[in-house]
Amino acid sequence: MVNKNIKIEVEPIGKRFFLDKPTNGLKAIINTGIGIKTVCGGKGTCGKCRIVILNGKVNPPNEQEQKILGTDEIAHGVRLACQQIFDKDLSIYIPASSLSEEQKLQVAGIEKKVKIDPVCRKYFIKLKKATLEDIKADFNRIKGSLKKKNGIEVDSIDYKVLAEMPSVIRNNSWEITVTVRGKEIILIEGGDKTKNAVGIAIDLGTTKIAVLLVDMLTGKTIDRKGIMNPQISYGEDVMSRINFAIQSRDNTAEIQRVVVDSINKTIHELCNQNNLDESKIIEMTIVGNTAMHHLFLGLPVRQLGLSPFLPLTNEVLNIKAREIGINISQGAYVYMLPPIAGFVGSDHIAMILATDLYKLDGNCLGIDIGTNTEIALKNKSYIASVSAASGPAFEGAHIRYGMRAAPGAIERVIIDSRTYIPSIQTISDRDPIGICGSGILDSIAELLKAGIIDRRGKFKPENSYVYKDSKGVFQYILNPSFYKNGNNKDENISINQKDIVEIQLAKSAIRSGIGILLEDAGIEFKEISKVVIAGAFGSYIDPRNVINIGMFPKISLSKISQVGNAAGVGAKMVLVSLKERKIAEKIAHRTRYLEITVFPDFFNLFAKNTQFPDPDEII
Amino acid sequence: MVNKNIKIEVEPIGKRFFLDKPTNGLKAIINTGIGIKTVCGGKGTCGKCRIVILNGKVNPPNEQEQKILGTDEIAHGVRLACQQIFDKDLSIYIPASSLSEEQKLQVAGIEKKVKIDPVCRKYFIKLKKATLEDIKADFNRIKGSLKKKNGIEVDSIDYKVLAEMPSVIRNNSWEITVTVRGKEIILIEGGDKTKNAVGIAIDLGTTKIAVLLVDMLTGKTIDRKGIMNPQISYGEDVMSRINFAIQSRDNTAEIQRVVVDSINKTIHELCNQNNLDESKIIEMTIVGNTAMHHLFLGLPVRQLGLSPFLPLTNEVLNIKAREIGINISQGAYVYMLPPIAGFVGSDHIAMILATDLYKLDGNCLGIDIGTNTEIALKNKSYIASVSAASGPAFEGAHIRYGMRAAPGAIERVIIDSRTYIPSIQTISDRDPIGICGSGILDSIAELLKAGIIDRRGKFKPENSYVYKDSKGVFQYILNPSFYKNGNNKDENISINQKDIVEIQLAKSAIRSGIGILLEDAGIEFKEISKVVIAGAFGSYIDPRNVINIGMFPKISLSKISQVGNAAGVGAKMVLVSLKERKIAEKIAHRTRYLEITVFPDFFNLFAKNTQFPDPDEII
Repeated sequence: MVNKNIKIEVEPIGKRFFLDKPTNGLKAIINTGIGIKTVCGGKGTCGKCRIVILNGKVNPPNEQEQKILGTDEIAHGVRLACQQIFDKDLSIYIPASSLSEEQKLQVAGIEKKVKIDPVCRKYFIKLKKATLEDIKADFNRIKGSLKKKNGIEVDSIDYKVLAEMPSVIRNNSWEITVTVRGKEIILIEGGDKTKNAVGIAIDLGTTKIAVLLVDMLTGKTIDRKGIMNPQISYGEDVMSRINFAIQSRDNTAEIQRVVVDSINKTIHELCNQNNLDESKIIEMTIVGNTAMHHLFLGLPVRQLGLSPFLPLTNEVLNIKAREIGINISQGAYVYMLPPIAGFVGSDHIAMILATDLYKLDGNCLGIDIGTNTEIALKNKSYIASVSAASGPAFEGAHIRYGMRAAPGAIERVIIDSRTYIPSIQTISDRDPIGICGSGILDSIAELLKAGIIDRRGKFKPENSYVYKDSKGVFQYILNPSFYKNGNNKDENISINQKDIVEIQLAKSAIRSGIGILLEDAGIEFKEISKVVIAGAFGSYIDPRNVINIGMFPKISLSKISQVGNAAGVGAKMVLVSLKERKIAEKIAHRTRYLEITVFPDFFNLFAKNTQFPDPDEII
Repeated sequence: MVNKNIKIEVEPIGKRFFLDKPTNGLKAIINTGIGIKTVCGGKGTCGKCRIVILNGKVNPPNEQEQKILGTDEIAHGVRLACQQIFDKDLSIYIPASSLSEEQKLQVAGIEKKVKIDPVCRKYFIKLKKATLEDIKADFNRIKGSLKKKNGIEVDSIDYKVLAEMPSVIRNNSWEITVTVRGKEIILIEGGDKTKNAVGIAIDLGTTKIAVLLVDMLTGKTIDRKGIMNPQISYGEDVMSRINFAIQSRDNTAEIQRVVVDSINKTIHELCNQNNLDESKIIEMTIVGNTAMHHLFLGLPVRQLGLSPFLPLTNEVLNIKAREIGINISQGAYVYMLPPIAGFVGSDHIAMILATDLYKLDGNCLGIDIGTNTEIALKNKSYIASVSAASGPAFEGAHIRYGMRAAPGAIERVIIDSRTYIPSIQTISDRDPIGICGSGILDSIAELLKAGIIDRRGKFKPENSYVYKDSKGVFQYILNPSFYKNGNNKDENISINQKDIVEIQLAKSAIRSGIGILLEDAGIEFKEISKVVIAGAFGSYIDPRNVINIGMFPKISLSKISQVGNAAGVGAKMVLVSLKERKIAEKIAHRTRYLEITVFPDFFNLFAKNTQFPDPDEII
C-alpha cells in the first residue's frame, strides 16, 4: 500500500524534513528522527501525537481519532500521527506539544516567510587605483563608487573599519566588498563577498539562550545552538540576579561578562562548525526579558527590582557590538528591541511580531508562560499587555518532585478514570525521577477529571488512591510501578496538596491577567477569536489541560495555536528584514502596558480564579 | 600732557588689555605686559613695533614714521608704537610680528566674533517621579519632557550615559540637566548645570599642541595651554613618525597613546586649574595636518607615506571620545574636520574658516608656513590648495646655527647698509646662542638689501664683512660683539652659504606653489587683493622681508595680514558654532587640492624661483 517514492514534507518547527522511504503512521515520522512520542504507544488512545495535515488529501478520521479529537480539530485537519497511513505526497505540521524530547531544550518557533530586506547590505566594488593624478582618499573613492554604481549614499565609516581599510584595499587589488548599514560602512572585505552575509539572532532567556546563525541573504537559519544562561550561577530567577548585580559595579560587570562570554563562545563554535568567520558577522539582534536586556548591557537594575519596576528605556538600542564585548565584526551593531515595562520585555514584542498577533483579525490573545507570564490582548484599536507573576511552578520549582524538562522527568500523565491508575511518559523513557511542567499540568487536569481533587483543589480523602505522606500531607502517587508493586509511598513521585496550591496560584495569576485585559478592553472571553501560546514550555503543554485546569476559560481547541519559541523567530525576523524591524518598533510603541496590581478588583479576581473549573466544563 | 584717566584697548591676539594708567609711547604698552619690543630701543629706526590704531583719532606720522612706514601703511593707520603719544581713548591692534617673546610659544589667533550655536545643548528638567500609575521608563520620561517643555526631539541616548542615568535621577530628586547632541543624549547631570557647558578645541601640530578650554555658552576661552607634541620622541618630522608607525600595529598604537595621554593630562591640568571636572566636558574638536589626524586616531599611515600620499578619508569624523581613549564626558564626541589631501590637513580648513578667506572679495591667498607650507587661493569660483615642501629651514633645521624660537635665539636682524654691522634682538634678551626662523628670514633680506649677497644668493666676497669659516665656506657673522671685539670668527653665530641655499629652496617652494595656483586659476599675482599669513611662525616674520626675499611677489604691505594661529581659532569656531561647522564642512568639500609636482612646468618654475628679487624691488 505504501508508495516507496512518496515524499512527505514535515514542518515541525521551521525545519523541513523529507521522508525518502516513509512507512506508515507514527513509525514513519519517528524514523525521520523528528521524534514524536505517545503515552499509549501508538494505540491512538492518548491523543499526544496530534499533527496537522497541511496539504495533500486528508483521510477521514478513523474511529479512534473520532473518539480523541474534537470536531473542530477534525475539521481543521488535525489527526493522530499514529493512525495515519501516508499514501501520497503530504506536508504535515507537528505542533511542538507533539514532539519528543530531542527538541525539548532548543524548541524553535514556527518561522514565517519574511521578505528579506536586511539592515546591512553588501556591495562588491572595483576601485580605480589611486595615482598622483587621481588622489581621492580611499573612503571617498568607495563613497563615490557606491553612489555612481549602486546609487547608495554613505556618509560615514566605522572608525575601526577605517583603520583596516587601506590594507584590505591594497592587499586585494582594489577589489573589495563593502557592507553598508544605514549610511555607514561597517565592514570592508577583500574580493567579492556579496554572497556571504551572516548575522546572529539571539533569544536571551533567563534560563536558556538560543543563538541562531542566519544567512541574511536568504533568511535561512544556517545553524542554531541552545545554551544555558550562565547567569544561573548568580540565581535561577531574575530577582536573585538583580540582587546580585546591584551589590556593586563589579557585580554588574561580572554578571554581564559571563553572558557575553558565553554568547561569544557559542558564536565561535557555530562559526567553526560552519566554516565561517565570526569577524565577518555583520549584525546581531537580541530579544529577552527586561532584566536580561539590562544585565546583558551591564545597565543598572536597582530600579528594576523596586516598585514601580522601571526599565531604563523603552526605546530601541543600536550599540556597537564591540562596546559590549561581543566578538563579531568590528563595525557591527547589536540591535535590541525595547522593553515595554519592567516585566514585559522585548521578547514579548518579538512574539507579537512573529505570531502575527498584531495584525490578526478580531480579538486575540498572545501568551508566553513562564515565571512571569506575559499576555498581550490585541483588539481593534490597540495592543495591551500585562505581566502575571505566575511563579516558577510550571518550571518545576516549588513543587516537591518538580524538576526541569530533563531525562527522567514525567512529562505526560493520563489517569484512568475507572481504575485511578496513572499512565506516564518520561523524557528519554527513563525511570521517573521527577515531574516537569507539562507533567504537573497534566497531573492536575487528570486529578480533576478523575474526581480525585475537587474544584477548590482539595484531595477527596475518600478516594482510595489518595495517601498521606509521613508528614500527614495528602498526595497522589504517579509511578505506575507503585500500583503494581505497592512500593513504600514515601519513595514514590507524587503530586501533593501543596503542589496543587502552587499550581492554583500560578494559573490564577494568568487567568486574572487575562481577566484584567478583557475588562480593560470591555470585551468578554467568548469574543476572543484566537489564543496563541508561545514559548518553549507553552509548546509542550496539552492545550486541552490548560483549559481543564482553568488557566483559560473554555475555548475551542481549534482557536489555540502553539507556536514554539516565537521570540527567537521574531529576533530573526528583525535581523533579516528592515520592514519587520519597523513593524516591531511600531508594536513596541503601540503596546500599552497595564500594571495589573493597581486594578482595584485584582485581589478579588485573583482569589476567585484559584478555583478550578466545574467538572462539567472539562473537555 | 598725558590724561591719567585715558583707557587704551589693546587687541593683540584676541585678548583685550586695558591700560589704567598709560604713559607715553612704547613704554605704555610694555607696561601692560603685552611685550612689544624693538631692535632700536625706541628710536623709531627699526620699525619692528608697528601697531594699528583701530579707533580714536590717529595722529599724523612723525618724521621717523614717515621714513619707516609705507604710504599705504600710514593711510591704513599703521604707526610705530614707540613714537606714539596716547592722549585719548584708543583701541589698537598689535600684529603678532610686533610682539615680544612672552607670546611666542603659544601664539593665539585673532578670534572672530562667532554667533554661539554649539552642537551640544543643555536642558534643565524637573521630572515627575515614577509611580506604579506612571511607569514610563526613565529615558522616555526625559524624552517626553524635552519634547513637551523644550520642543526638542531626542531619539537615542549614549549607552554609558544610560547606565549612569537612574542613579543621577534618583540622587538628585528627579531634577537633572540633560546634554543633547543632535538627537542623542550624551550627558546627564544632577541639578541645574545649564550654566556650565565646557568644550575643548585642539590644534594638533607636529611640534606643538594648543589645547583650549572653551565656555560653549559664551564662546570665551576659559584657559589655554600649549604643550610639545610628545610624538617628537619618534621623530621631529612627519615622515619619521610615519616610518615609526608603519613598522607594527604596536607602534601605531604606541604613537597614538602618547599623544592621547598628553592631551588627557593637559585637559586634566586645565580643568584642575579652573575648578572644572573633565568628565563634564561635552565636546572636543581637533584640527591638524593629515598625519597628525591619522596618528591621533591610530589609523594606518603607510599609504600616507607613499605616493600618491592618500589620507584614508576626506570626510568629517564624529567619534566617541572614549573610543580613542580621550578622558572627557563618557558620551562626548570628538569632532574632526576632514583632511583635504595627504599634505593638506584639517588645520588648513580651519585656517580658511577662521581667516574668512572663503568669503573675502576678490582673489585672496591664505598661507601657513611650515615644513609643509599650505597655500590656498580663493577666487570667484572656488578655493584651490597646494602643499609646498618648504622644508624645516624656517624652523631652524638644516641651518648651521638654526634653532627653535627659544630664549637666546636671534629673532630680529637689521644690517646697517653703510657700516654692514648688524643689530640683533634675541628672545628674552639673552646672549645669542642661535638663530630662529624670523631671524634667518631677516638676515637673508638684510644681506640682500645691504648687497652682501647677490640675486643668486651668492656672497660677494669683495665685501669686507664676508668671512670664510675654517672649512672655506663663506659666512656673515651676526653677533654685534664680534664687530666690537673681533672674536674668533668660528665661535660666532653666522649665516653661511649653505644656509642661504636652504632658504632659497624653501622660499622657492612657496613661491612656486603660489605660481601654480595662479596659473591654474589663470590670474596674475597683481590681481591678488589680500594675503593672509597664518600660523605661529608666519606671525613673527616681518612681511616686508617675506617680500624682500621673494617668497611672494611684491605687494603692498597693507594687503598682508598676519593672523596668528588661525587653525586653533577655527577649531574653536567649529566647537561653539554648528553654523561654522557646516561652513567648514562646505569649505572642505569645495576646496580643490592641486598636486604641484604633476604640473609640467613645476621644476622650471622651481629653479627660477630660487633666485632673489632684483635689488630695486626691495622695499
